[in-house]
Amino acid sequence: MTEKLILNEDRFFDSDPKIRGVARELYEGIKDLPIISPHGHTDPRWFAENQPFPDPTELIVIPDHYVFRMLYSQGISLESLGIPTLDSSPVEQDRRKIWQLFADNFHLFLGTPTGIWLNHEFFTVFGIAEKLNGKSAQRIYDQIQEKLQSPDYLPRAMFDRFNIEAISTTDAAADSLEHHDTIRKSDWNAKIVPSFRPDGVVNGLHTDNWRQNIKDLSKASGIDIGSYATYIKALEQRREFFKSRNATSTDHAVLEPYTHELASGEVNAIFQRALKGRASGEDAAQFTAHMLMELARMSIEDGLVMQIHPGSYRNHNKTVAKKFGLDKGGDIPVRTEYTFNLHELLNRYGNDPRLTLVIFNLDESANSRELAPLAGHYPAVKLGPPWWFFDSLEGMTRFRQSVIETAGFYNTVGFNDDTRAFASIPARHDLSRRIDSNFLAGLVARHIIDMDEAQSLSRALAYDLAKETYKL
Amino acid sequence: MTEKLILNEDRFFDSDPKIRGVARELYEGIKDLPIISPHGHTDPRWFAENQPFPDPTELIVIPDHYVFRMLYSQGISLESLGIPTLDSSPVEQDRRKIWQLFADNFHLFLGTPTGIWLNHEFFTVFGIAEKLNGKSAQRIYDQIQEKLQSPDYLPRAMFDRFNIEAISTTDAAADSLEHHDTIRKSDWNAKIVPSFRPDGVVNGLHTDNWRQNIKDLSKASGIDIGSYATYIKALEQRREFFKSRNATSTDHAVLEPYTHELASGEVNAIFQRALKGRASGEDAAQFTAHMLMELARMSIEDGLVMQIHPGSYRNHNKTVAKKFGLDKGGDIPVRTEYTFNLHELLNRYGNDPRLTLVIFNLDESANSRELAPLAGHYPAVKLGPPWWFFDSLEGMTRFRQSVIETAGFYNTVGFNDDTRAFASIPARHDLSRRIDSNFLAGLVARHIIDMDEAQSLSRALAYDLAKETYKL
Amino acid sequence: MTEKLILNEDRFFDSDPKIRGVARELYEGIKDLPIISPHGHTDPRWFAENQPFPDPTELIVIPDHYVFRMLYSQGISLESLGIPTLDSSPVEQDRRKIWQLFADNFHLFLGTPTGIWLNHEFFTVFGIAEKLNGKSAQRIYDQIQEKLQSPDYLPRAMFDRFNIEAISTTDAAADSLEHHDTIRKSDWNAKIVPSFRPDGVVNGLHTDNWRQNIKDLSKASGIDIGSYATYIKALEQRREFFKSRNATSTDHAVLEPYTHELASGEVNAIFQRALKGRASGEDAAQFTAHMLMELARMSIEDGLVMQIHPGSYRNHNKTVAKKFGLDKGGDIPVRTEYTFNLHELLNRYGNDPRLTLVIFNLDESANSRELAPLAGHYPAVKLGPPWWFFDSLEGMTRFRQSVIETAGFYNTVGFNDDTRAFASIPARHDLSRRIDSNFLAGLVARHIIDMDEAQSLSRALAYDLAKETYKL
Repeated sequence: MTEKLILNEDRFFDSDPKIRGVARELYEGIKDLPIISPHGHTDPRWFAENQPFPDPTELIVIPDHYVFRMLYSQGISLESLGIPTLDSSPVEQDRRKIWQLFADNFHLFLGTPTGIWLNHEFFTVFGIAEKLNGKSAQRIYDQIQEKLQSPDYLPRAMFDRFNIEAISTTDAAADSLEHHDTIRKSDWNAKIVPSFRPDGVVNGLHTDNWRQNIKDLSKASGIDIGSYATYIKALEQRREFFKSRNATSTDHAVLEPYTHELASGEVNAIFQRALKGRASGEDAAQFTAHMLMELARMSIEDGLVMQIHPGSYRNHNKTVAKKFGLDKGGDIPVRTEYTFNLHELLNRYGNDPRLTLVIFNLDESANSRELAPLAGHYPAVKLGPPWWFFDSLEGMTRFRQSVIETAGFYNTVGFNDDTRAFASIPARHDLSRRIDSNFLAGLVARHIIDMDEAQSLSRALAYDLAKETYKL
Repeated sequence: MTEKLILNEDRFFDSDPKIRGVARELYEGIKDLPIISPHGHTDPRWFAENQPFPDPTELIVIPDHYVFRMLYSQGISLESLGIPTLDSSPVEQDRRKIWQLFADNFHLFLGTPTGIWLNHEFFTVFGIAEKLNGKSAQRIYDQIQEKLQSPDYLPRAMFDRFNIEAISTTDAAADSLEHHDTIRKSDWNAKIVPSFRPDGVVNGLHTDNWRQNIKDLSKASGIDIGSYATYIKALEQRREFFKSRNATSTDHAVLEPYTHELASGEVNAIFQRALKGRASGEDAAQFTAHMLMELARMSIEDGLVMQIHPGSYRNHNKTVAKKFGLDKGGDIPVRTEYTFNLHELLNRYGNDPRLTLVIFNLDESANSRELAPLAGHYPAVKLGPPWWFFDSLEGMTRFRQSVIETAGFYNTVGFNDDTRAFASIPARHDLSRRIDSNFLAGLVARHIIDMDEAQSLSRALAYDLAKETYKL
Repeated sequence: MTEKLILNEDRFFDSDPKIRGVARELYEGIKDLPIISPHGHTDPRWFAENQPFPDPTELIVIPDHYVFRMLYSQGISLESLGIPTLDSSPVEQDRRKIWQLFADNFHLFLGTPTGIWLNHEFFTVFGIAEKLNGKSAQRIYDQIQEKLQSPDYLPRAMFDRFNIEAISTTDAAADSLEHHDTIRKSDWNAKIVPSFRPDGVVNGLHTDNWRQNIKDLSKASGIDIGSYATYIKALEQRREFFKSRNATSTDHAVLEPYTHELASGEVNAIFQRALKGRASGEDAAQFTAHMLMELARMSIEDGLVMQIHPGSYRNHNKTVAKKFGLDKGGDIPVRTEYTFNLHELLNRYGNDPRLTLVIFNLDESANSRELAPLAGHYPAVKLGPPWWFFDSLEGMTRFRQSVIETAGFYNTVGFNDDTRAFASIPARHDLSRRIDSNFLAGLVARHIIDMDEAQSLSRALAYDLAKETYKL
């Protein structure tokens, strides 16, 4: 009665024998390359403290909004999945019961990347040999639980086994980076670097949160932020601090990638209003546009690679956000314009080869229309890999099909896993490597490129481009 | 000299033998399932009166704007195709001459779904064994004409032979549903239910049409509509009436899916202006946005599934609309935004599992960007099948490729034929079943899902999801 | 050590044997048809003077912004590529050194249409048998250089060998067409016709350029342009002049395809402001919208096919434009709306079968949503082939996949090469013919059309549609 979980060796490759054969050969050549993970959300504390993950539910279900958003979409309450509430109102505490609910509904993930990653993780990381469903749920829980308590499944052991050469976390401007320090000072030799994500002090300056974040930034930098000038100084100081902890990049999430430098009087006035809690939403939008200009200037000066993640309407579902907090699966993409929005930044800084600007995107219609043409012209612009909903078999394939002809391969930057689901990292890189192998195989099969060219590109996409672009 | 019309048994399947083999096996398993048709435009009068369709031209050419828009686009006048004029100015009356013109230009439909459906209809419904072209035109006309006069081709006989388990028509708010009553009271046992489409009293309240429709609604409901409150009461009363006639759903066509609840004073003021013929276009847009909120509330209360069909600029060609009336092939889609537009409705009602909101879409760029993420999060949201221009081989394939990875299969609702071309219903469901079989076969061939999973999904897409979502 | 450059006979065809076999058969049937090139940017002077092209670098690298934009995107300066500066500041003059730089970076073109065209050109036009790279650079330079000095590589000889039946150049309103006259009066019998592109006097009427162009137009037409009425008269006169030189079409580049007829007083006022150098950017936008209406009216009257190329933000990179001039690879597409923008023009003129309006597009999201529905309804509307960034293997394939089901094949107009890279013309038409053969083969393999239908369509796409639509 047990259904076996077997990962076919040729999975995700085109079924045409010609393409499949080439894809397999390309994949064989790069599958064991170390993992470069230049943008993600793993918690440095895991590696600093190296404590066991408590149980399968807390490792796999509760922290992963990719998982629980799908269950929620089918009417399963977040309370029943154990997602903690902000007001500490009660939620399901029985880890096995939550796991059972997840397993009962595992068919919802058929055909989704989450389903693909989880099966890979179960099979490869935890050695599970049967499919997850309502019947096998508790047996599988037991197996994972047992593993998690062994030394081989401590965070550092997994990190080493995953063959991760370098990973970058994502850290707020005021972060102490203490866990990074602990790791660096330990006898464990792993490259775990921070990246500088100052969203909390760049966006939303009309909110109370922003004022709190400015206080934290003052404290962290030791600079009393009473003016725009001291604010800039504090940011520059923090960037230096991050660099001293081996950071090589920054990251900026914005709704619209609008860029515009404000006159000095204007930006000072907005900043003062904000400090007094009198700034408007429009002030905030103008300030973010201005700061993208400033942050590009800083990147040219200090060499940190600049990333932009635009186009997500964060916390669209206010009911969920109010009860369970931010980042609970309710972020929804919006139409995103780049040609006009980036015009000022690119005219000011885009011709400067010292700037590397990696642009991510959630609006596929902009890929062939705006982003590939921008990357295929401006020296500074590089295209980030398909992000979030598009970090998928079809999404990655469409990305390659829509950008390579215009931007070429060398204006893309390899793969990012962008995940907080640590145990899914090998699965994500494996899927990406398979999809790129298959894409290149399609080019070989149609005689667009030769096998030796494909092999060289294959390695670039799996390893070289990420390492070089992000200076890791 | 005769070219044979043969429908290949493997038509529309990928030519790769691996995919084709699996597709064929999946299709075999579901091809004979009964048809569930939860949204369409067949005329209940046909089934109430059960009179023969008069002739091939009147069955196939004159009522079908999919057919005559393509002929018109190549410079063939609507008059020469017998499309009736509003002012009764003369049009071609010779049915055979129109049929000949249609047949002479049948090559225009090469590669189009209309061509695919018509060939299926000719072969399967009417037993035609040669291709339609200028030479075979009159022979084929004779064969169809002969069939139409036999009892086997009366509407009810065809309905039974098509194996239709349930069909929903689309009916105005003030409709008497008399034909539905006639069918229900007859000894013919068929499930033909109405659906509630109050567009005429919800949209365009700045027009004379709206005021006439309000009068009709007053009359039909027996409620004298002199205020917004009585208007709402009348709508609720009509929904109850539709439910008593077995309706399970409503439908709403809007240009933009903008949703916004107006303050009570505001909506009353707009309504009073409208009754007096003094409302503006902006009033109308605000009122529609408000009514989408109200209609969602009503759906939660009475359980009718709510459908939205946004994004069509109706009657774009005013010259044609003025001469021949509405719905004459001149409706053109527009760019459509969902994330911001639906924000208010979804925040108010989207977390309520009592609401089922089926969203249709004519802007493919929104599928992966906005609709799949919304459906993959909000419990109320389900995605309607590809509609109109996208109810096609490539359109349905792209839909699956762009939404399943994010929304999963179970946030989609199976197939709708959405047609007034009765004899094309089996063709449309057959095409959909083939495309879904082929899509699933592609997943099996790449080892993304297993065969047993594919079989279960295959049945869900062909039958279960439509039946369950629409409560039929 | 030499890598061979071999063009596989089945290149660009799907690797599935069924599709490939049919594609090959279809391609064999049309590959030797003469080239119809109804829209492009070859310089008539080449054919009038028939002088040798000076060297490989000046033929292939310097004039082709497709080539140097990609090199520039990777940090290679335009100066080092010999692109002339406006202020005559020095740039690299050593042709061999530039060629070496180009060859050293030829891997940037892997997977791009530019790479495909260049390889075709090297192999087929110049008989090069090895791949271009840093090592082979100078040998290949020598071979091409030698060829260019032989009589077989003079412009007219190449034109004849390329089997070009008709080509249309693109010419400003005030152009004397002297080179066309020289060709026509020569003993060389080739069909090289002008097309009327009055952008310089239609767009940007708030700029000094416009006023200069109006002076040129006055001079060319012999009509003193002091009013809107004389301006219109001058345009009509020039159109007649172009027609007398065998022009069959016009072309109009606009940012937005907005159409709107201004009241006579309004347009006169704008025009007078413009003559005095006091027009605004908004005046210019309104005037262009108005002129699209006027130009459609003129096309109906004089029979010139009207082309619109919308959606490009010209010279986005002002730094490059300021130093090197216009059209240096820095044009970036923008989101483009058609349904509302073309509403007025189509309602006024779109039902008139005397008008042929060929619409080009750089926003793929509009193809299935707006353009195919418009072309599948309005008699005047035809869809131009995929343009610029989309004149590529994937771009052309997506175009067919997204428009044919709605617009049919016969509302498209075959292929345009749209190039100033003369020696790439055979490569571009060959790629297009291969892609269309492959697309049709896919339809045959899935039993959507029959082989005889595919053969007829194949010829239409490669030859007939361009010839008929453009009246060549």
